[in-house]
Amino acid sequence: MVDAGVWEEVMMSKIAEMKTKIEQPRLITGRTRVFGILADPIYHVKTPQTMNALFDSHGLDCVLVPFHIAPAGLPALIDGLRKIQNFGGFIATVPHKLAMLDLCDEVTDAARHIGAVNCVRREDDGRLVGTMLDGIGFVEAMRSRGTDPSGMRVFLVGAGGASSAIAFGLADAGVSHITISNRSAARALELAARLAAVYPALSISTDDREVERHDLIVNGSTLGMRPSDADPVDFTRIHAKHLVADAIMEPAMTPLLTTALSKGCEIFLGKPMLDSQILLMARHMGAFPSN
Amino acid sequence: MVDAGVWEEVMMSKIAEMKTKIEQPRLITGRTRVFGILADPIYHVKTPQTMNALFDSHGLDCVLVPFHIAPAGLPALIDGLRKIQNFGGFIATVPHKLAMLDLCDEVTDAARHIGAVNCVRREDDGRLVGTMLDGIGFVEAMRSRGTDPSGMRVFLVGAGGASSAIAFGLADAGVSHITISNRSAARALELAARLAAVYPALSISTDDREVERHDLIVNGSTLGMRPSDADPVDFTRIHAKHLVADAIMEPAMTPLLTTALSKGCEIFLGKPMLDSQILLMARHMGAFPSN
Repeated sequence: MVDAGVWEEVMMSKIAEMKTKIEQPRLITGRTRVFGILADPIYHVKTPQTMNALFDSHGLDCVLVPFHIAPAGLPALIDGLRKIQNFGGFIATVPHKLAMLDLCDEVTDAARHIGAVNCVRREDDGRLVGTMLDGIGFVEAMRSRGTDPSGMRVFLVGAGGASSAIAFGLADAGVSHITISNRSAARALELAARLAAVYPALSISTDDREVERHDLIVNGSTLGMRPSDADPVDFTRIHAKHLVADAIMEPAMTPLLTTALSKGCEIFLGKPMLDSQILLMARHMGAFPSN
Repeated sequence: MVDAGVWEEVMMSKIAEMKTKIEQPRLITGRTRVFGILADPIYHVKTPQTMNALFDSHGLDCVLVPFHIAPAGLPALIDGLRKIQNFGGFIATVPHKLAMLDLCDEVTDAARHIGAVNCVRREDDGRLVGTMLDGIGFVEAMRSRGTDPSGMRVFLVGAGGASSAIAFGLADAGVSHITISNRSAARALELAARLAAVYPALSISTDDREVERHDLIVNGSTLGMRPSDADPVDFTRIHAKHLVADAIMEPAMTPLLTTALSKGCEIFLGKPMLDSQILLMARHMGAFPSN
């Protein structure tokens, strides 16, 4: 049995330490830098929680707040945000990613290739620099699990915004081949052409019959969000050696992922793809001191 | 000596309780309503701290953040803020109070009479409704100390923005007389005329020789901010029955207040005048549920 006096001393010191934390929460003051997330609707976004937690954990005097903005109001809001001298930048999400491409003063190669912007830095003179981190986020989420997609043959479902970002992210990460499977063959060919223009050495196909001959299956389409959706790929062709990823966030476990798991595949969920972007977004927006 | 086991149990339970508080701070989420304070410079403002503490104490899912905006950028920012559907309104301070009068869609009588706006509500359709709470704040700060200015004879120094707001606030609170003392007699007469137009029954004078014959002396000028400033009023004429107020925030104790205190007067500092506005501002911006 330990002496009660010793216990008292130790515990009182721990309590005092915690009281300090409770009574001195991170305050928003006149010196705080402000960041935003622009979306419509906005209620479901999780970025304020995750980004502010990141700011807190790094002791940054920054705060991110939600801005619910409809497409019609976007240009006027962007004009206004440029003028705020303590505004560091913002995250753009549905439905603003395409429109932001033309509203920025400058965009990164990733944003230009993918044709969309999801993160914008405001420079001190009010200029806006946009980038697109969805593809890098997808790759980083795989790498954080110890999987390097370099050299892999990829079967990609969809040719819209998410698939496009993932295709360019994987091409940049050095995959050897990408098959694009899409209901509209025209859109699949259009993405293939854009990929080929930037990555001429990459093997690209839109012949989606041989699912088996790939290492990584990725669903970048919305198929699997609703119970009535068609399967994004012929489930009978999935085998245990396939790595299977889905960009869908809700539900977390899509029919594709459930099937893949039951066949013994390693699977990758949609949410970590977004989570892994938080640090990349904070860096792009200049939240960290550049010293 | 208490048994160590008992201590351990009690302390661990207290620690668990505190950890819960630390780990569940008030979160900014996609459902949080956003408010702002617009100023230039901005670093010195205290409103984010006081307003967010008010939101916290009432359990409101609201947050107020600083927007550092120069006069040239104000109109564009206002256009942008109108579009944000979860934006509730803002506080305008130096140097934006006069400009906001024309940038609002609607202003209260107080704002129109005083010729300035310091608090704006954004309605659901984007319309902006401005008001001016400096004068009411001054009166509320006196009342919260148990002093009702109704029926008093007031000696007011200055005829600029702060003095104007205080004059209308005191007139509305039912003072019987206001003497306006200002270096520029023309500006004193101009304020007197505006007061007379709204309060025809109020006794008003710009003859500032007889300081003694007043109940309340108020400094609404900037005299007393700098050590080299002239005295706002002839200090030899202040007697112990005078109530003496100063709208200057920094220094908290001006030469006027120090002198008044030494003569046994009751004194009123500048900061409580601002503090008493916080609740009025939150109400005007619609932060509280309306039912």
